[in-house]
Amino acid sequence: MSKDTIYYTLTDEAPALATASLLPIYRAFAKEAGIKLELTDISLAGRILSTFADRLPEDQRPQDGLAFLGELTADPNANFIKLPNISASIPQLNAAIKELQAQGFDVPSYPEAPKTDEEKEIQARYSKILGSAVNPVLRQGNSDRRAPAAVKAYARKHPHSMGEWKKTSQTHADYMRGGDFFSSEQSITTDKAQTVRIEFVDQAGNVELKKSLPLVEGEVLDSMRMSAKALRDFFEQSLQEAKEAGIMWSLHVKATMMKVSHPIVFGHAVTVFYKEVWDKFGDLFAEIGVNPNNGLGSVLDKIKVLPQSQQDEILQAIHDCYEHRPEIAMVDSVRGITNLHVPSDVIVDASMPAMIRNSGKMWGRDGKTKDTKAVMPESTYARIYQEVINFCKTNGAFDPTTMGTVPNVGLMAQKAEEYGSHDKTFEVQADGVMRVVAENGDVLMQHDVEKGDIWRACQTKDAAIKDWVKLGVTRARNSNTPAVFWLDAERAHDNELRKKVELYLQDYDLTGLDIHIMSYNEAIRFSMERMIRGQDTISVTGNVLRDYLTDLFPIMELGTSAKMLSIVPMLNGGGMYETGAGGSAPKHVQQLLEENYLRWDSLGEFLATAVSFEELGIKQGNDKAKVLAKCLDKATEKLLDNNKSPSRKVGDIDNRGSHFYLAMYWAQELAAQTEDAELAAKFAPLAETLTANEAKIVEELNSVQGKPADLEGYYHMDLAAVEKVMRPSATFNAALESL
Amino acid sequence: MSKDTIYYTLTDEAPALATASLLPIYRAFAKEAGIKLELTDISLAGRILSTFADRLPEDQRPQDGLAFLGELTADPNANFIKLPNISASIPQLNAAIKELQAQGFDVPSYPEAPKTDEEKEIQARYSKILGSAVNPVLRQGNSDRRAPAAVKAYARKHPHSMGEWKKTSQTHADYMRGGDFFSSEQSITTDKAQTVRIEFVDQAGNVELKKSLPLVEGEVLDSMRMSAKALRDFFEQSLQEAKEAGIMWSLHVKATMMKVSHPIVFGHAVTVFYKEVWDKFGDLFAEIGVNPNNGLGSVLDKIKVLPQSQQDEILQAIHDCYEHRPEIAMVDSVRGITNLHVPSDVIVDASMPAMIRNSGKMWGRDGKTKDTKAVMPESTYARIYQEVINFCKTNGAFDPTTMGTVPNVGLMAQKAEEYGSHDKTFEVQADGVMRVVAENGDVLMQHDVEKGDIWRACQTKDAAIKDWVKLGVTRARNSNTPAVFWLDAERAHDNELRKKVELYLQDYDLTGLDIHIMSYNEAIRFSMERMIRGQDTISVTGNVLRDYLTDLFPIMELGTSAKMLSIVPMLNGGGMYETGAGGSAPKHVQQLLEENYLRWDSLGEFLATAVSFEELGIKQGNDKAKVLAKCLDKATEKLLDNNKSPSRKVGDIDNRGSHFYLAMYWAQELAAQTEDAELAAKFAPLAETLTANEAKIVEELNSVQGKPADLEGYYHMDLAAVEKVMRPSATFNAALESL
Repeated sequence: MSKDTIYYTLTDEAPALATASLLPIYRAFAKEAGIKLELTDISLAGRILSTFADRLPEDQRPQDGLAFLGELTADPNANFIKLPNISASIPQLNAAIKELQAQGFDVPSYPEAPKTDEEKEIQARYSKILGSAVNPVLRQGNSDRRAPAAVKAYARKHPHSMGEWKKTSQTHADYMRGGDFFSSEQSITTDKAQTVRIEFVDQAGNVELKKSLPLVEGEVLDSMRMSAKALRDFFEQSLQEAKEAGIMWSLHVKATMMKVSHPIVFGHAVTVFYKEVWDKFGDLFAEIGVNPNNGLGSVLDKIKVLPQSQQDEILQAIHDCYEHRPEIAMVDSVRGITNLHVPSDVIVDASMPAMIRNSGKMWGRDGKTKDTKAVMPESTYARIYQEVINFCKTNGAFDPTTMGTVPNVGLMAQKAEEYGSHDKTFEVQADGVMRVVAENGDVLMQHDVEKGDIWRACQTKDAAIKDWVKLGVTRARNSNTPAVFWLDAERAHDNELRKKVELYLQDYDLTGLDIHIMSYNEAIRFSMERMIRGQDTISVTGNVLRDYLTDLFPIMELGTSAKMLSIVPMLNGGGMYETGAGGSAPKHVQQLLEENYLRWDSLGEFLATAVSFEELGIKQGNDKAKVLAKCLDKATEKLLDNNKSPSRKVGDIDNRGSHFYLAMYWAQELAAQTEDAELAAKFAPLAETLTANEAKIVEELNSVQGKPADLEGYYHMDLAAVEKVMRPSATFNAALESL
Repeated sequence: MSKDTIYYTLTDEAPALATASLLPIYRAFAKEAGIKLELTDISLAGRILSTFADRLPEDQRPQDGLAFLGELTADPNANFIKLPNISASIPQLNAAIKELQAQGFDVPSYPEAPKTDEEKEIQARYSKILGSAVNPVLRQGNSDRRAPAAVKAYARKHPHSMGEWKKTSQTHADYMRGGDFFSSEQSITTDKAQTVRIEFVDQAGNVELKKSLPLVEGEVLDSMRMSAKALRDFFEQSLQEAKEAGIMWSLHVKATMMKVSHPIVFGHAVTVFYKEVWDKFGDLFAEIGVNPNNGLGSVLDKIKVLPQSQQDEILQAIHDCYEHRPEIAMVDSVRGITNLHVPSDVIVDASMPAMIRNSGKMWGRDGKTKDTKAVMPESTYARIYQEVINFCKTNGAFDPTTMGTVPNVGLMAQKAEEYGSHDKTFEVQADGVMRVVAENGDVLMQHDVEKGDIWRACQTKDAAIKDWVKLGVTRARNSNTPAVFWLDAERAHDNELRKKVELYLQDYDLTGLDIHIMSYNEAIRFSMERMIRGQDTISVTGNVLRDYLTDLFPIMELGTSAKMLSIVPMLNGGGMYETGAGGSAPKHVQQLLEENYLRWDSLGEFLATAVSFEELGIKQGNDKAKVLAKCLDKATEKLLDNNKSPSRKVGDIDNRGSHFYLAMYWAQELAAQTEDAELAAKFAPLAETLTANEAKIVEELNSVQGKPADLEGYYHMDLAAVEKVMRPSATFNAALESL
């Protein structure tokens, strides 16, 4: 790679559309500092195509963008900007495959129940695309996320709406009080590099090797079990409680991220909620390939092969369940899509803050908002939401105009695996024992398990923890803010980490720093008590809480997590600048398709790009890059102050209009600055042109709104078609080219 | 006093009745150890009579028991047992006066609105009888309260009923978020003995001396203000919220203890709830002497002088209020007595734990239990109840079979005045400034006030604080239990105390002790989290929290606070042994009057008397006293194990029966012990007699049940009549006399 190259990612849905408008602006400006922006395809469609490149003719084979960036993380000069991408569920994967096939790409269908070796191989390949497959490859460092000062100031001045909390709200978080991962977690730290074995021992004593696991010295390894029986009992009880209290019931999981365990959990919720349906049609469902782990949507899809009368009977049985079950929260009440239709529809880290921001209510079948039992079976992290809910009932909704901020330092490097991801998660096939055995034959950890239980292991590497402690201390020092390590005294994993944290903290002079170690409930309460008093507190957390908290607090503070600055200082010295933790926003695309209006806010991209430029400037001694960065930040502030972010409805400026304003302000700042006369001279004419043509350009951009737009694809859009849609102002385009 | 005398108090209602049965037993046993038990009258009637002794003929003048015991507190050998007495509200005082007058005592009526000097003097004398007048005189030391091991073990084995908590409960504690004492509290510590002045300055600058206040060196003085306007707004909002949510509304104050401020607060609640009634009839009410501070009962009582048609009109107006107000919690739904009828009916420290134990519900008009908005305007302490409520919603009801215990060390000595009691509490008569001025003219503290505001000051003496810290450390050491000083970082008073606590803690070797200082919410949460894990935590608190927590936790742990061991180690070396924090129980008397059944449980008296005997034994080198104490404790354990406490209904043994079993077990233990052969020999025949006649005695005791009993008085009962009622077993009486 060139040291002057910044890699900008092509992802999916709204961010990908925004890129078609924004990247040309970046490129035009950056080239004046000798910086090149390369677009690297890590979209879902792109990943499918590169995964099956061997089946495609030469001209259809894309670059494997993800592999490329993955290698780049080892480069001390790595500098890339990562936009939100789809964490694909199976329904999304199927849709993308269908689209590619229709476009003439010879990619195989996803075999849900593979039988042949070939099908198994295909499924294995696809499994590497599902869920949060991108992040573990790219996040080769720990995470530093915060609300930039300009964004926080803007939110204080122009607070987003916050639903009032009633002291009498019946909303609460519900979670298992036993039988879950939390209550069974075991954890060890290996004192030497070794390969351990994950084994299943059946009741006859037969030992099956599930996986060989190489560990490095000082690595933390956890194992834990969720009882399927306890889980189903919990679901049943929670349903009865909600029914009795007359409140709604909703399920909050993260099937996209915990892509082995959570679809199973989701499936149990479906088969408990619709118990009578499965009692009656379970065998038939198995025959026709209904998979409850894919949600009620799977039923509705698969039964289409049945005679109408049988379909009607099944639909009636489903309908009958609603009679004795509590009302279920809706994802889309207009279209009748419930919380149990699609596993990827309700993603806990986004859905819970949305509920909390919305007076603790979710949407019911009738389109009205109602108090809800928010069900998150695994108690490890669910408890923090109950703490927040109790806090809001007691103190009222958070007030964005006065509240402090909670930046996060997250343990994420070297795939820190608190999620217990993927290759070490098993649905147990028979009663017996799951165990982890050392090289010398010692049993390190073991759990009695029953058929259907979920067992998983997680690894966290010592170097990642050490770097995380360093980043926590650095952020506390640099921002002069108290920092809390969230380590739960009742969690085996956290107690292993605590030993390391206490050890590595000794490497630093902590004079003048305010560093705590607290259990989760204590930590979130401490942070919230400070927050409502306008005080800031850094949360230094594991990987899951990083994910959850960097949605939770930003959504309260800023109305969205998309405005957070998200930096991954790589272990090897490079930097990844992530934008928009808010997902890739399918609803935005829908609106664009219907009325050519894109409400995606690229603020996250503005902020990340400025830091990316600045870092490149510092590392490569490129002063022009630093000036570009500084002026981009100022332009962003101006844009916020002048309220030039996209509105939400046709007639106002959308994503494209906000890009224009960014460019205009940026050019104005560059023209006005005195650090680099050459840049000032270069950008003065552009500033002039854009300023003079403001009304005309806005008119050109806005005039396309109101009619449908065609992207010639959804997962694999035609880039030329996208560019045509996203760059409709000839005046603006010409001005950029004139540079 | 003789060093071998224990003073046993004659109080009111159920405890006084129980004394008539129990004291003869104590006297019979104690005389074998050379111990004399003297009965000292501190009953409400007794205090009225001795206060007006100058108006009575010689033969009607009682001993002033309270003054006598008050002097005794300075004696290092003081040893007395204090039973619960009435903290009189004005309605109770009036009833007692009426009764005494009817019995031929020439005591004056209570002048509610005194006009003449004579009336003012009478009111001033009565004001020293009202409310918690007894405790400040006697409590010349700090407070040590705990659940005795035998009692705790019994509760674990035989748990009391606990109402289930729903996660969806709408019950909550509601309190002011500003304008209350908490938000206005100021506090200073005087560096020298001086007399400060409490002054009111009106808007014209005229200064009125409200009180001269002598302070000793190192004394902490607080001042604070509650805005009447903010209070009334708060009540109105709380009523509307409860109405809107469809839950009940209840008021929880402590008018008996905070006898100046809380009746005013109560009065505001009455006039806000029944706003339309006061709008319409306020002037008339003033004329006929209705005082809202005495509750709706005052209206119902005073309007009796009006024509029936006008009475009906008023009753209709009251009734109309119920139409647009939330349902109000009932004290007695059968008799239609609401929460606003009598200020002394709902005493926060008892009513809140009762609600929390009862699934967070109170009784409604229809006799059903319902979710409730529990209103405690002053936020200082109310917040802890909300913390408990949130905790129960999240974790379910406490489990007496597994929960830990929270003993208390309370700052109480030298009238530690966190309550802001009495002589330094003022209802402000005009807009202006209330201030505290030092001898040198410096203004130490001041508040802008408006007409109707409540302003108060509190004093806490340095020596009391120093002794409190010592007691806290001693208890932590002796019981090997973590101790938490509850000092709120946002309270001015507590911050003054914190400085002293941190200083005085340095006097002790704290090695091996686990001592914390925490804000209230933090402290109660910490204690509860430990509690549900079976761990014990000593609460070291101020005077109000002492009062509240020694009801709250015992009621969860033991089902009642009456079973707590309550010791006041006096500053001068003596000891007071208090029994039954649960009040003097008017309902028990009612049952006795109706069906000659007394369900009062004297367990508190058993426990306190054992400690009293033990202390006397240690101090006077009286080994027989120690043996009596040890055997009394064993007898108490046996009584609990054999379930010989009073039941609640006719047919089972009542208070008298349980006294018999105590005597029998005590005699058996004394006969069986080998430490003192003389005692063993002495008690062997008694043990034999009682054991042989068990059935007969129980029959004699129980046979009187079911018919009304006559005590010839309520506040001033005839002691001979009481003895006749309470000692109906000739066999038992004869056996005791045989000693």
